[in-house]
Amino acid sequence: MTAYHIFTPEQAMRFADEHSELFGEHSKLSAAEFGDGNLNLVFRVVNDKGTSLIVKQALPYARCVGESWPLSTDRARIEAEVLQLHARFCPEHTVEVLHFDRELSAILMEDLKQYDILRTALIKGKHFSHLAAQLAQYLAQTLFYTSDFVLTGPAKKAAVAQFINPDLCLITEDLFFTDPYCNHERNNIHSLIQPRARELWQDEELKAEVAALKADFLSKPQALLHGDVHSGSIFINEENCKVIDAEFGFYGPIGFDVGSLMGNLLINYVASAGLFSDPQQVLKQQQYLLSQIQALWQQFAETFSHLQQTATQDPALQNERYQARFLQQVFADAIGYAGCELIRRTVGLAHVADLEKISDAKTRASCETHAIELGRRLILARQNLTSIEQLLALVQTLKR
Amino acid sequence: MTAYHIFTPEQAMRFADEHSELFGEHSKLSAAEFGDGNLNLVFRVVNDKGTSLIVKQALPYARCVGESWPLSTDRARIEAEVLQLHARFCPEHTVEVLHFDRELSAILMEDLKQYDILRTALIKGKHFSHLAAQLAQYLAQTLFYTSDFVLTGPAKKAAVAQFINPDLCLITEDLFFTDPYCNHERNNIHSLIQPRARELWQDEELKAEVAALKADFLSKPQALLHGDVHSGSIFINEENCKVIDAEFGFYGPIGFDVGSLMGNLLINYVASAGLFSDPQQVLKQQQYLLSQIQALWQQFAETFSHLQQTATQDPALQNERYQARFLQQVFADAIGYAGCELIRRTVGLAHVADLEKISDAKTRASCETHAIELGRRLILARQNLTSIEQLLALVQTLKR
Repeated sequence: MTAYHIFTPEQAMRFADEHSELFGEHSKLSAAEFGDGNLNLVFRVVNDKGTSLIVKQALPYARCVGESWPLSTDRARIEAEVLQLHARFCPEHTVEVLHFDRELSAILMEDLKQYDILRTALIKGKHFSHLAAQLAQYLAQTLFYTSDFVLTGPAKKAAVAQFINPDLCLITEDLFFTDPYCNHERNNIHSLIQPRARELWQDEELKAEVAALKADFLSKPQALLHGDVHSGSIFINEENCKVIDAEFGFYGPIGFDVGSLMGNLLINYVASAGLFSDPQQVLKQQQYLLSQIQALWQQFAETFSHLQQTATQDPALQNERYQARFLQQVFADAIGYAGCELIRRTVGLAHVADLEKISDAKTRASCETHAIELGRRLILARQNLTSIEQLLALVQTLKR
Repeated sequence: MTAYHIFTPEQAMRFADEHSELFGEHSKLSAAEFGDGNLNLVFRVVNDKGTSLIVKQALPYARCVGESWPLSTDRARIEAEVLQLHARFCPEHTVEVLHFDRELSAILMEDLKQYDILRTALIKGKHFSHLAAQLAQYLAQTLFYTSDFVLTGPAKKAAVAQFINPDLCLITEDLFFTDPYCNHERNNIHSLIQPRARELWQDEELKAEVAALKADFLSKPQALLHGDVHSGSIFINEENCKVIDAEFGFYGPIGFDVGSLMGNLLINYVASAGLFSDPQQVLKQQQYLLSQIQALWQQFAETFSHLQQTATQDPALQNERYQARFLQQVFADAIGYAGCELIRRTVGLAHVADLEKISDAKTRASCETHAIELGRRLILARQNLTSIEQLLALVQTLKR
């Protein structure tokens, strides 16, 4: 056991070499840090044959969200353990963890250098037909197998305790559910949409629904979530996609993971009107995204439902009517969380490149207003939408 | 720190003397064990002036529920800590814990010898007008102040972890929600109602609702519950009542505590037709119970709602529409859990004296059938009952 110290590239290199056979003997290794440095150090370690691995180390301090927000390095343990558990149920689409050192808060993992970040690819207008199907598998497998359908009461309780993640959950509790709906100093609102943002703060009907979604985030430990499935946490190439960055993992409502992803696809949907100058390309991009959202839900629901029917261990939860209603509620929850994601990425602290890349301020404001309107409608309508087609119809009626 | 050993009366006496000033110097103490001996030892320690205290010690083995079911002595810690926390929010109606020794799994607490057990009192037809009002206070105060309305995300998560109670929760998970709805060997079904019990096992509509109630019991940590608020856990006299036996405490759905109490009052309601030979007394007893159920909900809702409006700390949960809907859902949950209590006390393992005291087998079977029918109706109707008056009307239309 080594006491915690912040890695130099040299030390990261030695850590990678020590805990993997991949580089072989007498490899000439090199290492460079390429993370953003706010929260974590991220090193790529490469040998002379081009074989590479990633070393991710959690920093003991964090200039994470605009002010000093305490963040325990325990998040590295959470990240490693979530990825390891998710890899047990869906190795194809979870980044592989080769080693984790608790003292050093350091994870050695596979390098996804053959992949692009999904957000970057979407902003460039790149389309992958396997996106929805593969992520539907990832979500259905990881969420089902960590749920009450499978785990005994005692095993589930031990897992909930293992993944209690107060610091990172607090970020979501505040940034996702609280700040955007009040005049909070952390908010980051472009001047042109200030008036629309202010309306949110008085929207008691909307705030009642967001409160219910927050209460579920706080008190509905249905499954071990990734906790941050946005399009920057997904790596993709022509054949495959893989999910990374699970430090927000905790036991929460299944709809949160599903809805975070849906919400990110919808953000690109509203942003595409500003990202592409050719109306045909906008149309093509939006059609692609809607088809992926449709496939994502259909295939998630199909797999999850099949698992409910064939792999449920708890006798009381084997009732098929209950299972169908459970899935219907996951759908409603997902739509609600997708709506929250649309709103918080527009008026909250943490913005996304899909919208920020729109250089014309008026166009961006129009897209952001679209995001707020769509988010609001999703949150309010979620309990009444009973099929993915109804959801898509709602999205399309709000065209701008 | 003393290693665990099973107390003799002499040792219980010394433990009580050591950890309380109450007996004074040179007291002549005596002690006797009077628990049922299955799960815990319960000693009354008395001095020569009649001052007395209770020593309750958890046994490391348990012939608890008909077979060897592992039960950690950690339940004594849970019991002590739940009672101490509940006493902080409602000292009037929580038994006072004077000392807890973790190693010995022993609790020193006040003696409620001036009180009767509520179940025994009800069976005798004794009525207390303060019952509902006081227990409504107990439930509203303890449940509100341990909920997301008050606690920050991190504080709530620490509390959830502190009160993870796998062994005792598993008993409820199985006996309350699973066994009664299948042909389980643990069930205890009087022969005359065997045919009615078998119908439960095929009742897919009912089982779907019970599955949802079980899923909430597993995954809806709204507040620190007592976890076992039946009429044997309540002591009452002409002025006051106090709740004891919190070893089933955990973070769960608020409706579970409220509904357990409602369910126990309703069990006495259906049993009263068999307990009393005079129809006028039956009527009086039932009217008393209905008035208490009405007052219980009204006063619980009034206090809880007042606390929501005046003491909620989380800004997102301060929305009044959300608060009203939250309380409405607690009502629906409570009715569902009351229904489960009626059914499991009739066909499950653990019966109650209200029904068991009915000596005529046919009369008892009629009351038990009534309990099953009422339980079923409550579970199925719970989401559509929007006022306590509607609940009482439903109970009265099922008269036998």
